[in-house]
Formats: sequence, structure tokens, C-alpha cells
Amino acid sequence: MQPVPAPAPAVGDSAAGKLVYDLSEGSASLKSLLGGKGAGVAEMTRIGVPVPDGFTVTTAACIAVTDAQGTWPEHLWDDIAAALRRLEARTGRTLGGTERPLLVSVRSGAVVSMPGMMDTILNLGLSPDTVEALGAEFGDARFAWDSYRRFIAMYGEVVEGVPAYVYADALDALKRNRGVTQDTELTTDDLRELVTTLLRLSREHIGADIPTDPAVQLRRAIDAVFQSWLNPRAEVYRRINGIPSDLGTAVNVMQMVYGNRGETSATGVCFTRNPSTGAKELYGEFLTNAQGEDVVAGIRTPRPLAEMQTILPQAFSQLVETMHTLESHYRDMQDMEFTVEDGKLYLLQTRTGKRTAAAAVQIATDLVADGVIDRDEALRRIEPAQLDQLLHPGIDPAAKGEPLTVGLNASPGAAVGAIVLDAATAESRAKSGEAVVLVRFETAPDDIAGVVASQGVLTAHGGMTSHAAVVARGMGKPCVAGAPGLTIDMESRTVTIAGTRLAEGEVITLDGATGEVFAGALPLVAVSVSDSFRTILSWADDVRRLGVRANADTGPDARRARDFGAEGIGLCRTEHMFMDPARLPAVRRMILASDDAERSAALEEILPMQQGDFEEIFTAMSGLPVTVRLLDPPLHEFLPSLTDQALAVQRLELTGRPAAEVDAASALLARIRSLAEQNPMLGLRGVRLALVFPQIPDMQVRAIARAALSVAAAGGDPRPEIMIPLVAFDEELKRMRELVERVMAEEFESAGRSVEYTVGTMIELPRAALCADEIAAHADFFSFGTNDLTQTTLGISRDDAEGAFLARYRADGVIPANPFASVDPDGVGQLVEMGVRKGRSVKADLHVGVCGEHGGDPASIAVFDRIGLDYVSCSPYRVPIARFAAARAALGD
Amino acid sequence: MQPVPAPAPAVGDSAAGKLVYDLSEGSASLKSLLGGKGAGVAEMTRIGVPVPDGFTVTTAACIAVTDAQGTWPEHLWDDIAAALRRLEARTGRTLGGTERPLLVSVRSGAVVSMPGMMDTILNLGLSPDTVEALGAEFGDARFAWDSYRRFIAMYGEVVEGVPAYVYADALDALKRNRGVTQDTELTTDDLRELVTTLLRLSREHIGADIPTDPAVQLRRAIDAVFQSWLNPRAEVYRRINGIPSDLGTAVNVMQMVYGNRGETSATGVCFTRNPSTGAKELYGEFLTNAQGEDVVAGIRTPRPLAEMQTILPQAFSQLVETMHTLESHYRDMQDMEFTVEDGKLYLLQTRTGKRTAAAAVQIATDLVADGVIDRDEALRRIEPAQLDQLLHPGIDPAAKGEPLTVGLNASPGAAVGAIVLDAATAESRAKSGEAVVLVRFETAPDDIAGVVASQGVLTAHGGMTSHAAVVARGMGKPCVAGAPGLTIDMESRTVTIAGTRLAEGEVITLDGATGEVFAGALPLVAVSVSDSFRTILSWADDVRRLGVRANADTGPDARRARDFGAEGIGLCRTEHMFMDPARLPAVRRMILASDDAERSAALEEILPMQQGDFEEIFTAMSGLPVTVRLLDPPLHEFLPSLTDQALAVQRLELTGRPAAEVDAASALLARIRSLAEQNPMLGLRGVRLALVFPQIPDMQVRAIARAALSVAAAGGDPRPEIMIPLVAFDEELKRMRELVERVMAEEFESAGRSVEYTVGTMIELPRAALCADEIAAHADFFSFGTNDLTQTTLGISRDDAEGAFLARYRADGVIPANPFASVDPDGVGQLVEMGVRKGRSVKADLHVGVCGEHGGDPASIAVFDRIGLDYVSCSPYRVPIARFAAARAALGD
Repeated sequence: MQPVPAPAPAVGDSAAGKLVYDLSEGSASLKSLLGGKGAGVAEMTRIGVPVPDGFTVTTAACIAVTDAQGTWPEHLWDDIAAALRRLEARTGRTLGGTERPLLVSVRSGAVVSMPGMMDTILNLGLSPDTVEALGAEFGDARFAWDSYRRFIAMYGEVVEGVPAYVYADALDALKRNRGVTQDTELTTDDLRELVTTLLRLSREHIGADIPTDPAVQLRRAIDAVFQSWLNPRAEVYRRINGIPSDLGTAVNVMQMVYGNRGETSATGVCFTRNPSTGAKELYGEFLTNAQGEDVVAGIRTPRPLAEMQTILPQAFSQLVETMHTLESHYRDMQDMEFTVEDGKLYLLQTRTGKRTAAAAVQIATDLVADGVIDRDEALRRIEPAQLDQLLHPGIDPAAKGEPLTVGLNASPGAAVGAIVLDAATAESRAKSGEAVVLVRFETAPDDIAGVVASQGVLTAHGGMTSHAAVVARGMGKPCVAGAPGLTIDMESRTVTIAGTRLAEGEVITLDGATGEVFAGALPLVAVSVSDSFRTILSWADDVRRLGVRANADTGPDARRARDFGAEGIGLCRTEHMFMDPARLPAVRRMILASDDAERSAALEEILPMQQGDFEEIFTAMSGLPVTVRLLDPPLHEFLPSLTDQALAVQRLELTGRPAAEVDAASALLARIRSLAEQNPMLGLRGVRLALVFPQIPDMQVRAIARAALSVAAAGGDPRPEIMIPLVAFDEELKRMRELVERVMAEEFESAGRSVEYTVGTMIELPRAALCADEIAAHADFFSFGTNDLTQTTLGISRDDAEGAFLARYRADGVIPANPFASVDPDGVGQLVEMGVRKGRSVKADLHVGVCGEHGGDPASIAVFDRIGLDYVSCSPYRVPIARFAAARAALGD
Repeated sequence: MQPVPAPAPAVGDSAAGKLVYDLSEGSASLKSLLGGKGAGVAEMTRIGVPVPDGFTVTTAACIAVTDAQGTWPEHLWDDIAAALRRLEARTGRTLGGTERPLLVSVRSGAVVSMPGMMDTILNLGLSPDTVEALGAEFGDARFAWDSYRRFIAMYGEVVEGVPAYVYADALDALKRNRGVTQDTELTTDDLRELVTTLLRLSREHIGADIPTDPAVQLRRAIDAVFQSWLNPRAEVYRRINGIPSDLGTAVNVMQMVYGNRGETSATGVCFTRNPSTGAKELYGEFLTNAQGEDVVAGIRTPRPLAEMQTILPQAFSQLVETMHTLESHYRDMQDMEFTVEDGKLYLLQTRTGKRTAAAAVQIATDLVADGVIDRDEALRRIEPAQLDQLLHPGIDPAAKGEPLTVGLNASPGAAVGAIVLDAATAESRAKSGEAVVLVRFETAPDDIAGVVASQGVLTAHGGMTSHAAVVARGMGKPCVAGAPGLTIDMESRTVTIAGTRLAEGEVITLDGATGEVFAGALPLVAVSVSDSFRTILSWADDVRRLGVRANADTGPDARRARDFGAEGIGLCRTEHMFMDPARLPAVRRMILASDDAERSAALEEILPMQQGDFEEIFTAMSGLPVTVRLLDPPLHEFLPSLTDQALAVQRLELTGRPAAEVDAASALLARIRSLAEQNPMLGLRGVRLALVFPQIPDMQVRAIARAALSVAAAGGDPRPEIMIPLVAFDEELKRMRELVERVMAEEFESAGRSVEYTVGTMIELPRAALCADEIAAHADFFSFGTNDLTQTTLGISRDDAEGAFLARYRADGVIPANPFASVDPDGVGQLVEMGVRKGRSVKADLHVGVCGEHGGDPASIAVFDRIGLDYVSCSPYRVPIARFAAARAALGD
């Protein structure tokens, strides 16, 4: 080998600080400097766990290099060389030495684990010279050449960008040629020949030789790690996950230990508990005579860890002891990598192990029971978003193949059923006992019965808050929305999903938690709310500051919400009551009325139905607040679409139908046209509708009053909160409050009794938040409607945006998250904060909540807790997650 | 008469302050206490102008009464009675006296003149007793009974609410019965009989007699004035005009002087200058033997003031002298009311006279020339909104009858022409030399050629910023939009306007300044920019701080804008270039392209056309900045509507057309459907379009670069500013800036030359304003797009809202003004202020303007000046108004 360049000064503070740490100088507390891996091995060294010796080039070095566009700080290489010399001294080996050569591994180690970055180079230091020395030293030439071929492949791929298949193909070709299937069946000569081939292939791809000077190898490998910090995949990942780009990555250089020195050597991975269930049991796999990625690469089948007890008994008992040591030390389940070299155990890495939601809950409660952590810490150990898994059945992960397409994970859970293309078919097939999945371009209110009859919903269009998604989440049904490549041909009654054509009646499986769509019926894993989950939720309730209510529009929903722990209803949408097919005729008569008398007559018909709805809900939520939002959507939502009706009229005309029939259809068309709006979201709806047609809120308030009076008379404790939607101007709310108070007084007067109630408003337009001080004068409470507030603040129509540009924005990293799933903290959050501050500046005891879809999203809940809202409201099925997320927020994460 | 109740203490400070002022105690400076009228007569008294004696009950008294729900303060009546006794003493007359009876007038006099409030009662004090005394004193029984019948009618109507027609009908019946046409032809006995009739009619309507006790008459009359302050009409007027409701009104009680004492008496009105032209000339009218409203009531034709010189020479010369006195005193043109009683002149009122825009400009410049006022004061004397009159021809006011309907005054000016119902008819009829007015339900881009061919536009639907309104204002064409009661029947090719049916080809007249629509051809008054107007504008330019640019999309528009004084283009919309019928085919090919290559080919075709547009504009604006906004609207705006295309496909199908034809139409329908959005305003447009189809901005930026290079090569000085629309996230702007800089560099490189340019963004979404600090990092300038910012901040779609609820909101007083005409200062203004502050916090020299429709609205300009914007941009025709309004804003009004 070439000697390492000129003697360097001792490791010391350069301009960029101390850039290289020996393992013995580090610890877990230096994670930001040493990265996760570096701090982990240093900490293991510190507490006496056997770890190969080595040193870490700090994140600060990486930052200095990237800041200088790739130029290294003056002393960096000198510092590395010095550390290397110290390592050589400690190990009695020399990098590039032709006797007792030192080989090292080079691994990146960012502070936060990050896909897309360079991972590992093993066996660095090998060359035509040293490979012979290595073989000679261990008396095992095969081992030496096996190590060398591995090094060439890793170095070529990672440092020089040679495609991985180039090396893999050469290995496969050789095995075919030799008629063997396992790498371990190749002879020393085979491997020697393979090395020659790989070196040639490398030269062909790189246009130069793989360097034989180990110092050059090391410097280039370290530089490749630095450069991978800035590669586009890593940049996108950082942007999407909000990881600052000035963290940098560390580089770990460690002496090689060899799991490929025959059957007394091995490499493996293990967990200190079962990461699927959380059970305290042995969990892991290993392979003898193997190195690096062999265990997870699937070429040879790894063996269960228990078998190690017989094969490598001493190393096994040392490993079990180490597992205890590390779990006790880190007070959490560990995920470890180890190597056994000739019977001796080395730990290569330890980190907190990833786990399923069920395991997370089980482990957290177990650790509390064992006195290892306290309840707050237990809550911190569980990822709120993951809890969704516990509330919906999922697809057996082992059975998952390649999905046909991946749409939006709009409502969690798995669904298996026959494709049905309309609501009527869904209902009739479901009635005959068939499990069906409703597949639509997008769903409309007419489809609700079809959704009820189905196991799940799949749509080609629409986002996380599309009609299908909202309805499905409300019902706790799985939904995949906006599936790319899905087209529906109603004439042939077939669907095509990314090229695969399926007829109505063929079975598909949806994973609403991932957005995956599979052909055929995949096996499902059932859900059960475990005792440990119930325990965790009760701890969460003790900790959280935010109240949690549910969005529920019916008696059954209200009861379910209460079962899930909802402390009231934060949003009862009355339009869903209007959509009921039994009521739609009266609703349409109301809309099409040519005068006030006709309109009032139609409303008279609707009143007792609404009253009945409210009675059920007030009864289910007796003693808890129920926020009823007065009619919000534009009236044309209750009518056929303009295009459909225009087509119907033209069809009647062109097919020569009687004039009376044409005239009736034309009259309806004219009314639809007069109500049509270019941007219905910004149109005649909410409080505007109420002020233009005051008979509608009059009827609704009367229904609320009568329902509350009747529930109270039956011994219940109704607590209605009447909410006015889409207020932009304080005068709007002032007038509506007058109407509500007048109608309430009339009903109380005529009943001779009264009930307590409050009047408040949605804050769902930027102006309402900006002028919240004026509006608060007329409000007992605010409820932030963050769906519409997001639409108007960002100028994004949630129903159109997903396919049009929002999915692409996320994929390209223009925005980090779907703002309809997770509240935009800078824009919308700023308005919510302003609304709360201004509202409370006028009325200190103003009760303030949020009732958008964000109310069930953990990241959003954290924002709302910080802003100081009183409660969040979400779909019944998300209430447990909201309770938990509120606790996490209260803990200040 | 009954004596005035018990002696009262001397006028003094009661709990509510001094509530009654003798005329001699007042002055102009006490306007807030004495009201406009009271202060005016007091001031005239003070400077020696002859005014009938009297006293004023203060606004404070009114407030005290209204605060106490109608109960009078303890000493109020006593104070009034004392003032009355002092008046009786000074005049030597007694209210209710049967010798030398004192009669008084009672008039309301608010601080700000306000319609809807009680006006005047004359001859108060008359009764069956005093009428005889009055006749006896002046030896003129006819005069006495004439005064009495007038008193009954005024008192009955104003105090008791008897409908005015009751008295008018009785008078008419009597004249018919006597066979006379003039009131003056009635005899004393006729009038005596009329009084008996009026008293009987009053009793029938009121259920009681008109009081005969003059003290009761006086107290009730004063109380009626107080109550009229709170009547609903007055309340709505105050709310709409932002007049505080706690100002109250004063009540003026003055000794009667009689213009109806025969031919030596008279009553009249006059102006110190001509209020139509501003010329220094005699202007006024009078009637002998008349009282009160006779001059303006139109029953007898009043005589020009000049004739008074011969009829009442002494009073005339006294009046001319008084005119000089008052104009000098008030330093402005005065509008005066006077009465001549038996040859002696009395002034009843003087106030600053209302005037046309032309007169305002003329008078202001004349007063500066005479050294009466300075230039700043001259600017203050002109109402900015009124200047619009000077820039568009108007209807001769004398010719105006009853309009058919009154829509929105969407674009000023008058238009006379034959009704045409579509663009093609407009073009063909116009070509044959006919003046036409385009009447449409609403206009679309396809109609532009029709608008060009027409004198003006009338629409049934759409608001102040509807397509028709914007296009018409841009072209300086009159437009009345959203006309109530307008329906169009394309089959019979007729329109019905509020019941009047008119066929295509019949002539109508529009007044775009008032929104009025008239049947037939009304005579027009031509426009001419006078020297005085030019002078005023040059003074405005000296004073204003705000820059004024124009919104212009073509070379001719740009030249016109420059002629009007625009200092650059603040908004050049590139989509209007796309709408050109010659280009639409290529634009549609671009949109329908199935791949990038096809799209690029279509864009290649469009590029030279866009380049040509930009060359014209840069040449016209050489040396001045031109802000070019990249393509903003959703692509489906360039395609047929979804409903139209669906109908076309169905028609082809049902009429059995060849499959190929049906397929082609269906393919277009499918593309339209895929681009269709529920809320296009919040959809795939602006920067989103640019990021999804980067070929489009690439082409546009290239066209800008090439145009600028070519204009510069020809010796011009192009100053392009490239503006990215609809930015919500800083990352969007960052990426677009990169694209712009890359394409510019490529073009400069290939040309071997370069030009200076800047890159900025519209701030037109609430999030952009809320996060302006992040966005400013990538922007050289901000331009607030307050149209869209208003839509999103208020959640109101401007194209739908006017007819749906916005007009009603204004009529009901829910909002004071159309937020699309005058910027909402509390909501949108707050965001603009925040955007400017945050933007400049990051970049102190950030150039900031506004380019919405508000840029030409004086009230909005005042808001923008206060916020500290650098410039406003508006349609070319409004540039002079903006220059003037900016000066007014700078003067701090």
C-alpha cells in the first residue's frame, strides 16, 4: 500500500471545531455531532458492550465540506489520518499493510435516519496486495477473496456510481456457470476469478481502476458520504420531512470484524422484544459465514435467533445479556445488528426499534408496569398517527404483492369485495349477502346508500377531504381516493386500473391506510382494542388540556362517538339530514318554490324530520354540548347538475316528447341555471343563504328548540350550541343571533318552558379571523372551520386540487404535506392564532374549538394546542387518536 | 291661543349642556351643535346678512331625547319656551297671539345633510283664531288662508304621518272644481273652504284634530324632528354612508317671512356661480307670491333670476351683494335660499353648492387664480369619484325620464344604440354603420369582438368586476351590468326589461355612470378635457406620493394609458392575448396536446405572436416599467363550456351523425371534463399552471426576452417586470424565478446582448400576505391583486355574488359598499398592510403596488396611500382619477 500522506498534527480544534472523534471520546449525548450510528457505537463502547474499534468524522466536517462546495477544510484529512494511526496502534494493524492488514467499514450516520443517502462500504483497505496478506493471516484465502469481491462491488456502486446490477449479474453468471445456487458454494478460485471480472467491469464503467491505495479509498469513501448528503433524493426527503439541510451527516470508520470467516462466524439482527406484538420474547435472525446485507438480501434464508443457542452458544448467551444491557440502558426496545467473528460477539449498531402500533402500546404499558418509564414517557413512545392501525382491520402484510395502483389513503382500514359501479348495484348485491366495493369517478350525496352497503370506496377523482373520503371516514369505512390510472366505462361496466381491466363483480382489495389497490381478495388481520390501548388512552385523558369532541350528524354516530370517548359534538352538519332520499323531494320543493308561502309550506314538512334527528342526537349526547351548524351548502347541491339537466331537456326535445314534459324539465333547468355558480365554494351558502332565505334558519332553529324541549321534558339534558357558518362580517352574525333569539323565545313562550343554549359562529374565512374582535361581540363561541379556511387562505379548492396539482406539489417537494390533511401552520395556523387572540381580546371567556378534518390529525392537534384552543372535533373513529394526540401535545412534543 | 306653560328659568346650562341657542349666539364654528342649517343662519346673522330671527335647539338635545327613548330632558321645554319669549320680545309678536301673531318655521338641521329625515314645517302658529289676526294685520285674508292651508298639509304629513297625496288630491279636486290650473287663481273663499276640507281629512286620518294650541304644535313639531333622526330610512343612510348615529340633529325655529304676500313678495334659490359649468354668472330662479317648495315643486314655472332685476330691483341688488358677501366669506360657491317679503330680502339658508365635475374643476382653478384658495385647497374642493364624468360622454340630464331599470354602474359613459343579442350580430350591424348596444345574460371571452363593435354593454348577470364590466372599463365603453328584471329570449330575439318587451334592433340608451337603462335614443352631452382639468391634474401630480400605472394588455391600450399620464404598466394580462380568435386554435391545440412534444409545437406557434404583442407594448412604454403577468386563468377558460360540449355530443348522437364526428366531439368533451373544476377560481391556474406545464412560462418568458431585446436593438428602452400570479408558497416563486432566470440567460446568451428585468409576484391569496416575509426573499416586487384577494379573504366569488346576495347585502345595510368596487379596509386592507410590512421587513426596498380594480377607486387609493404602497395601477381611463385621488390621499383626507 501507499503510506498515508505526511504526518499530521494531533487531533485538535481546527477552524470548524474538533472534526474527528475516537469511539472512546464519544457518547450518546454527542448525537448531533456524531450522528445516530456514531453516538450509538460510542455509547456502547462507553458502557462496555463489545464494539469494533474506530472513529467518527463529525457532522461539522460534512457541513464545512458542503459549505465550501466540496473543498475539505485544511486539517480534515490530517485529523482523519491521525485517528487512523491511533486506530492502527490500538489494533496492531496497518491500513494497506501486507502483514496484519487493517480493514475498515465506512458508514454514513446522519442525526436523523434518512433514506437516499450513502450507506455502507465494508472491507475497505483491500487491494491485490492486502487480500493475500488477509488470507495468509487467517489461513483462509477463500474468506479473503470473498471479502475482496464484496468490497469492489460496494465501493464501485457507492463511490463511483456503477449500477449495482453490473456486479450482481456477474456473480449470478458465475454461479450459473459453476452450476451452484449459493454464494458459499463458490470456491476460492471462483472468487479470485470473480474479483478479476469485477475489477474489469468497474474499469469499463468508471473509465479508471478502483484505487488500490487504501488511503485514497478511504478519502474517496468519506467524500462520497459527504456528497450523498446533498443528493436530490436526500434533499427532497429532508424538505418533505422538515429536516434542516444544515445538519450534515457523520461518517463512521470502524475496524472490520468478519462474519464470513466460516461456520464459527455469523452476522444477524435482533430486537429486544417482538416488534409486531410487543411481547417480551426472543426475536431476530442470523446467518453463519455471512457479511453485511446477506441477512436481509434474501439470497440465503436466515435462521431464527433461537437456533443460535445451539450453533454459537457462547456468543448467544453474550448476545442475550447484551440485549438486556442495552434495553435497560436505553429504557426502550432496541433493534441491534451484530457480527460473530470466530465465536466472538461484536455489536455493530443499536437503535430504538420500529414497531407496530399494537407493539408500541404493549411495550409502553409493560415498561410502565416494570417501572422503567413513567406514564408521560409511555405516551411519548407511541406515534399518534400509527394508532389508526388499531382502529381498523388491515391487510396481512405477508400477503401483500404488487398493488395495481396507489391512490390517496383517504380512510384507513382494509376492504375486500366485488367491484360495483353504482349505489343501486351496491345495495342490491349487498342485500344478497355479497361483500362489495363501490368504485366511482367521484361520489355524490346520491351515493351514500351505496357507501353504506359497501365494504369500502375507491374513486378516481377527489382528495383527502372529497365527499367520498369524508363520508367514508365518518362511517369508519376504508376509502382510497383519487387513484391514478383508474378509468370507469359505464357502458361496458368495466374499470381499468393502470392497464388492468376488471369487470363489475370481480374482487379487489383496498388498503385505506396506504392507498394501495390490489386485484383479488387478500387476507385481512382483525382489529381488537386491547387492554393496553385502553390503559394508554386513560393516561392520555389525564394529561391532555384540549377537549375532544366528535363530528356527528345522526343518533347512531353520536352514540358511537360517545363510546369512543367524545366529550360532545363539535359539528353536527344539518345538510346531511337534507340529503336523505326520503326528504329530498320536500327539500327540492323548498328550493324550487316560486314564493315565500310555497317555501314555508315545504319547510313545514321538513321541520318534524329535523326535530326527530335532533331529539336522537340530544338524547345520545345528554349532558354534553352539541354544536349544530345551520344549513351551509349552496342550494344547487340538492338539485341535479346543470349539465345533466341540460342533457335531459335536449334529449326530451330531440326525441319528440310531449311539450308538457319538455316544459317541466326546462323549468327545472332554468331554476338550476339561476342557482348555478362559477365558484359555489365562494357563493350563496352559509349565513348568506340564511339571510336571503330567513325561513330556512327559522325552521331549523325551531326544530332545535322543539327537540331540546322534548328531550328535556323526557328527563334528558340537551345542550344545544347553535352555530352560524361562513360569517365574514360581524353584521351577519348580529342579525342571525337576533333571528335565533327571536325564534327560541317564541318556542319557549309557546312551550311554557325553556332550555339553555348558546350562539356562535364558524371562523372559516380569512376575514372572520382578521376581524374576529368585531365578530366576537356577537358570539358565545368560535369554531374554526379549517377545511374552508384552508381553501380560502391558500386559494385551493380541495375537491379539484389533488389530481390537478396538489399531489404533484408534494411529490416535487413544493409543499411538505397535504394542507387538507395536516393544517398549514404558517398560513392557516397564523389566522387561527390571530382569530383566537382577537376574539379573546374582546371576550376573555370565548369558547374556541376547531371542527375541520384537521381536528383528528395529530400534527394539527399539536398546532391547535399550542394556539390555546379549548377543544378539537373530529370523526368518531378518530376520537381515540385525537385524545392521544392531545396528550402528546400537552406533553410539549 | 293657550299661553305657553309656566315661566321657565333663563337659558342656561342644564345637565345636557346648553340646549337652545338664539341665532345671535351661534356661528359657523358651532356646526356640530347647531347643525349645518343652524350654524349657517347664525353665521349669516353674525356677518350682517339679513336673516329672519329665531333660535336653534341643539343636536345635544336630540341625543338626550333619543338616549332617553323619547323622554325630554327636564328643562328642555322650559329652555325652548324662554327662547320663544325672547323671540317674541325681539319681534314684538306673540305665538298664538290674536294680534300680531308670531308664525315660525321648524326645520331639521343635521350636521351632515341627510335624506330620509323630516324637513320643514312653515307657518307654524296658525289656528282658526290666528289666521284671522294674520289676515287682518296684513290686510290680506287670502294670504292668511293660503298660509294656513300650507301649514295644515305640512304639519299633517310631517308630524302626524298623513300621506302627502291626501292633501294634494284635495287641492287638485278644488282647482278642477273651480276650473283653474294655478294655486294663485284660487280665491280667499276657495282657500277657506280648502282649509275646512284639509282639517276634516286630517281628523279622519289622525283620529284627532290638528292641535290649535301653537305651543303644542311647536313641541310636537320639534319632537317629530327628533324622532325622524331614528327612522329606518335615516338609519340605513347613516350606516351606508358611515355617519355616526350619535351625532343627532338640531332643530331650527325661525320667524316666518312671507314670499306669498302678493307680487312684491317672492321666494327663490340661487347659486353664486353656474353649478353646471362653473362660470361666474348669475344662476337661479324665483317665483313671486310663493312659499317654500313652490319653486322646485314644478307647479308653476319659476323665472330666471335675471328677471328679478326688473320686477324687484331693490331686493335683487341686495341679493347680488349678499351673494358676493357669502362667497367671499365661505371662500366657495354658495347655494342659497331666499324670500322677499314685500320688497325686503331675507336669506333662509346658505351652503356650499353642489356642482358638476366640470364646474368643480372650473371653480377650483378660478378661485386659485383669484387668490382665494391655494392649490391644495383646490384639490380638496373636487370629489375624486365625480371626475369620471369628465372622461366619458353623458346623457343630457334635462332629457332623462324614468329609466326602465337601474343596474350596476359598471363602466361610466353613455351609449345609444340598437339592441343586439350576440357578438356576430353586433359586428355585422356595426359594420353597416349602425350604432349598437350588446345585450347579454353575461359576456364571455367570445364576446370581445362584439363589445368592440358596440357603443356599450348591458348584462343581466354579473357584478362590478364581471367580465363585461372589466372589459368595458378597459375599453372605456359604457356598461350597465346585472340589470334587475332583464331577461333575454334568444328564440324570439327579444329582451324584456322590467316588463317592457323590446325586439333586437330597437334602440336603448345606457347611462354607465348611474346604471340607468332607458328606452329610445336620449341626447348625449360630449366630453372635453378642459384646460382647467389639465391644470388640476398637474397640481395633483405635484402633490401625490403614490405612482400611477395602468392595466393595459395591448399596444393601443398602452399608448392611451401613457396619454392619460400613466407612469408605466402595472398589469399586462397575457391571457387576453391568448383569447384572440386568430390564436385560439393554437391555444386549444396546446391545451389538448396529448404529450409534451405536441404541446411545445403549439406553443412555438404562439411565441412569435406574443413576442409581437410585447414589442408593441414595450415600444409604447419605452423608458417606463411594464409588469407582465404570466398566464393566469385555468385552461378550460379557453375551451367550450362543459355543458355546451356535452349537449353538442348528445345532439350528434341523437341525430345519427357519423361515428368519427361523434368520437371527435366526445374526445374534446373528455378533455374538458378532465380540466373541469368545481371552483376554478381556486384551481389549476396561475403559478400552479406554470409549475405543472413549465413549457407555457418558458414560451412566455422567451417571448418577453426576445421582444425586449428587439425593442432595445431598435433604440427603445424596454423595462420588463415579470410577475408570477397566485403564489401561496415561497417555494413556488423560488422555482419560477429559477425558470425565468434560466430562460432569460439562454435568450441573452443566444442574442449576445441583454436587458435589465425584475421578477416579482402577485400577492392575491391570504397566505401570500400572511407569509410575505418568506415570499419576499424571492421577489423584487409585490403587486397586490386585490380582486382575488377580496374573493378569497371574504370568500365571495365576484362573478356570482352580485345577484345572489351582494346587492341585497348593500340594500339591507349588512355591508356599506361593494367590496369589489371599494377595498374592504378592515379585512383585505389589513392583509395588504401586513403583506407590505412583512415584505419590507425582509427587503426594505421591495417595490410594492396594487393592480386590482381597486387601483382606480378613490376610497381604495386613500387606503393604499395610508398603507404606504409605491403605486396603484388601474384601467387607462381611470388614470387621471387615480392621479387626482392619489393627491387627495397625500393631502390626508
